[in-house]
Amino acid sequence: MLSATPRTALGRSKERGRRDRQALYDVLDAGLICHLGVVASGAPMVVPTGYGRIGDTLYVHGSTGARSLRAAAGAEVCVTVTHLDGIVLARSVFHHSVNYRSAMVYGTARVVDDPDEHVAALRALSEQLAPGQWDAVRPPTRKELAATTVLALSLAEASVKVRQGPPSDDEEDYALPVWAGVLPVETAFGAPEPDPALPPGTPVPEHIAGRKMALYQ
Amino acid sequence: MLSATPRTALGRSKERGRRDRQALYDVLDAGLICHLGVVASGAPMVVPTGYGRIGDTLYVHGSTGARSLRAAAGAEVCVTVTHLDGIVLARSVFHHSVNYRSAMVYGTARVVDDPDEHVAALRALSEQLAPGQWDAVRPPTRKELAATTVLALSLAEASVKVRQGPPSDDEEDYALPVWAGVLPVETAFGAPEPDPALPPGTPVPEHIAGRKMALYQ
Repeated sequence: MLSATPRTALGRSKERGRRDRQALYDVLDAGLICHLGVVASGAPMVVPTGYGRIGDTLYVHGSTGARSLRAAAGAEVCVTVTHLDGIVLARSVFHHSVNYRSAMVYGTARVVDDPDEHVAALRALSEQLAPGQWDAVRPPTRKELAATTVLALSLAEASVKVRQGPPSDDEEDYALPVWAGVLPVETAFGAPEPDPALPPGTPVPEHIAGRKMALYQ
Repeated sequence: MLSATPRTALGRSKERGRRDRQALYDVLDAGLICHLGVVASGAPMVVPTGYGRIGDTLYVHGSTGARSLRAAAGAEVCVTVTHLDGIVLARSVFHHSVNYRSAMVYGTARVVDDPDEHVAALRALSEQLAPGQWDAVRPPTRKELAATTVLALSLAEASVKVRQGPPSDDEEDYALPVWAGVLPVETAFGAPEPDPALPPGTPVPEHIAGRKMALYQ
């Protein structure tokens, strides 16, 4: 179960909250990028970036010199993963909405110093973005590992919100002669585009060609 | 032109920066949701939400009681819009990346008090998410308008980053016998799903049925 803290207890739209830990894993595991929020020089900064999960720890990484990573190290952060599933078209402007699944994780980002955890986290990050590639391509060198900062964030404090289904209109608006419903937003992988530098005829591995968007819709 | 400030000047990957204002409009206008970053009780908070643009002002809105909106009002915020366009599959783990278009806007969020600007902003928000719906459905009542806080953010301080194309591998890795290229990520609207409460045979308006994802690849 996800425990409610002042900032994960849902204020608005409580019916959209999910309190089971599996719902959190489902939202995180289905994603490709997150939005990392940090406070830099006193102001918020929101950066799109990759992430990975091992058990109840979320990992983000970046170049050792990146400003967002430096601001996040040892500091309070918020990581948000959002899937937009549809536009909810209501009978009034006011009740327009979106169908979505989102997770927000709050906590202090710990710099990963342990070499084994560092590599395991990078592997998790790689698998999240491109499953199967870690074993298929050249592994990181010691120099490349040293150039990459990895931050760990506990999933102890998190909230999950999900909205699904048709619009919720005001009772008297259901009689209006307007169409209402959901316009789905669908995300999928397209056909792999070979690097022009690749020798002609290089086969596309099945873990790339056969990849499906995980758990979307 | 977008002027460089300490936080919009790109530190890493300078070649991905775009300094023309049209690039900023293109990224913003193609999006459906943004991630709004605020500082609440001293810690960052990143919330997915809708937005709209009129000229060089970005608008976000929310319930008057929402914690994120209260934290943002009159305070420093960061709004980020990200389009994920593809997974960049390199010949080494280290050079894996993503193709994307993203915009980050920084500034102080101004609460919109002027009634005309308030309605104009809500219309822009509505058009961004669901073009054509404002004129097709019941307009907001005075009570609904009062329940909605709108915040304005100048586009004066913003940065745009774009990555496109195949992987950039280390020279010596191009000889490795592995496939490399881009796995495109494509986002599209699905077939409209009618509200079960709708009278059977209600036609789907063309502005919904014929809608295409704006500027997505």
